[in-house]
Amino acid sequence: MSSRRPSSVTIREVGPRDGFQNEPEIIPTDEKIRLINSLGRAGFKRIEVASFVRPDVLPQLADGVEVLKNIDVPGDVSLMVLIPNSKGLDNALKVREYYHEASIFVSSSETHNMKNINRTVAETMSDDKVMAKRILAEGLKLDAVIATSFGCPYEGRIPLDRVLGLAEQFAEFGATEIGFGDTTGMANPAYVADFFAAALERLPGVELTAHFHNTRGQGLANAYSALEVGVSSFGELGGCPVHAGSTGNISTEDLVSMFEEMGVDTGLDLNRVIESAREAQAFLGRKLTSHSILAGPVDWTGTLAAH
Amino acid sequence: MSSRRPSSVTIREVGPRDGFQNEPEIIPTDEKIRLINSLGRAGFKRIEVASFVRPDVLPQLADGVEVLKNIDVPGDVSLMVLIPNSKGLDNALKVREYYHEASIFVSSSETHNMKNINRTVAETMSDDKVMAKRILAEGLKLDAVIATSFGCPYEGRIPLDRVLGLAEQFAEFGATEIGFGDTTGMANPAYVADFFAAALERLPGVELTAHFHNTRGQGLANAYSALEVGVSSFGELGGCPVHAGSTGNISTEDLVSMFEEMGVDTGLDLNRVIESAREAQAFLGRKLTSHSILAGPVDWTGTLAAH
Repeated sequence: MSSRRPSSVTIREVGPRDGFQNEPEIIPTDEKIRLINSLGRAGFKRIEVASFVRPDVLPQLADGVEVLKNIDVPGDVSLMVLIPNSKGLDNALKVREYYHEASIFVSSSETHNMKNINRTVAETMSDDKVMAKRILAEGLKLDAVIATSFGCPYEGRIPLDRVLGLAEQFAEFGATEIGFGDTTGMANPAYVADFFAAALERLPGVELTAHFHNTRGQGLANAYSALEVGVSSFGELGGCPVHAGSTGNISTEDLVSMFEEMGVDTGLDLNRVIESAREAQAFLGRKLTSHSILAGPVDWTGTLAAH
Repeated sequence: MSSRRPSSVTIREVGPRDGFQNEPEIIPTDEKIRLINSLGRAGFKRIEVASFVRPDVLPQLADGVEVLKNIDVPGDVSLMVLIPNSKGLDNALKVREYYHEASIFVSSSETHNMKNINRTVAETMSDDKVMAKRILAEGLKLDAVIATSFGCPYEGRIPLDRVLGLAEQFAEFGATEIGFGDTTGMANPAYVADFFAAALERLPGVELTAHFHNTRGQGLANAYSALEVGVSSFGELGGCPVHAGSTGNISTEDLVSMFEEMGVDTGLDLNRVIESAREAQAFLGRKLTSHSILAGPVDWTGTLAAH
């Protein structure tokens, strides 16, 4: 069993971007900064902190530059920003010294891509190719994300070949990491196993990141399934808005709890991750759908029976 | 991959017993009957409907006989009752014609067993052996359940050998099904894989049932893990109380949703299972922590892209 299970994983924390962008209320900038600093102390080595989307479209993230300039995380933390288009990249490059990685993206579903960014997939990939060159020319690490990789509410299951074809294009553009997003929570663990087994074979040398939502409660099952076929990079959301019944992400702390209890090293201090989640819960003024906040980690030390 | 994944599974619905016994309010008998009838229509072939525990200890289930006598489910549904001790069995056998299976149980943790039923594990097994004979003599199917199989909050991880040793004793008593309960939600999918791989090897010819709680959000991941090593029987709880953050069971509808989307046949009508859960939600007067009630099933038919 589980011969391909990695002994350690990297978790890319996307809460300050993916979480806050979905909040109905705009989170105060100093609260965002405090949360990111807290995530840094918890041990995250990669944190997505801003998106260079138009502020009139997403006022929730309009303070991205101020956040970038004022956070204080350990020097080995790689800060990531999301770039929706060339105009966004223009703005991002004005503050290029404040982050280390830039993510470009597309949706594998034509309908979803059109509804999300009002362009065809081909138009998006064409722009992404130009952006990729500029990002790499700046010496930044290039990441790419493919939304609706496991299904789309408008188009159903997106053929595996189409998704992996887009991933291969991103690899040609120079992306060293490609994330596959279960944007509306339609993945199941059997499909995830088949998907990543194929992806790992077709994209050698590229870091493949799995990003699951918990819409149908299968988020951690999908993460476990991906892990078992050899995926060692996960993008999730801790200390952040996950509405019950929404298409919200897995709570990072629940993912960390599962991996650590399995003996898979995340490099994170789970108690501190939970503490970050509690802080977010406090300033959001409502309970998050995290299990670990309530149940805590399984602490075998001290109570461990002879085994 | 997944060479041991069964193509179909059986789900034993324990909601009317395990769910209602944890409700602070006593559910009216006619509501219980309506829910059980609804579960029967949804396609469940095994439903646990009563527990013969002392009514002063669990007034929530004091109406077990009335429930048994008045439910109306298809003729091929096997009704199950839980028997805590010989006195409970005396009472259960007075209405023997109203059910088909009887479950005896023990906790693999001495401390948990003592706190739960105020007896040592050895005393419990000794009484269970006597009860097993009487149950089999009545021509009933004998089931057994081992609580805290994957860990105990007082004793930590219970050694695998101790748990499987108890299971072997139950098999000797004549149990044809043995359930392993993650009573307080301490299992993780790596341990579950190792656990059931060993259990399936050591207990040939016995139906092994996995029963997980979702305390740390890992319930479906554990179910998937058990499935992948060959477990085809699951005991869960649909249309019933699962408090957020409690040690509550997985929602059956979420389990069914995952299996059906994976192509594993449950024999159930997911929409009807969700309907049962909605009915329970209505008479409980509060939202359940089911994802499927909110998100619904993934319905590929009608929107399925060329694949």
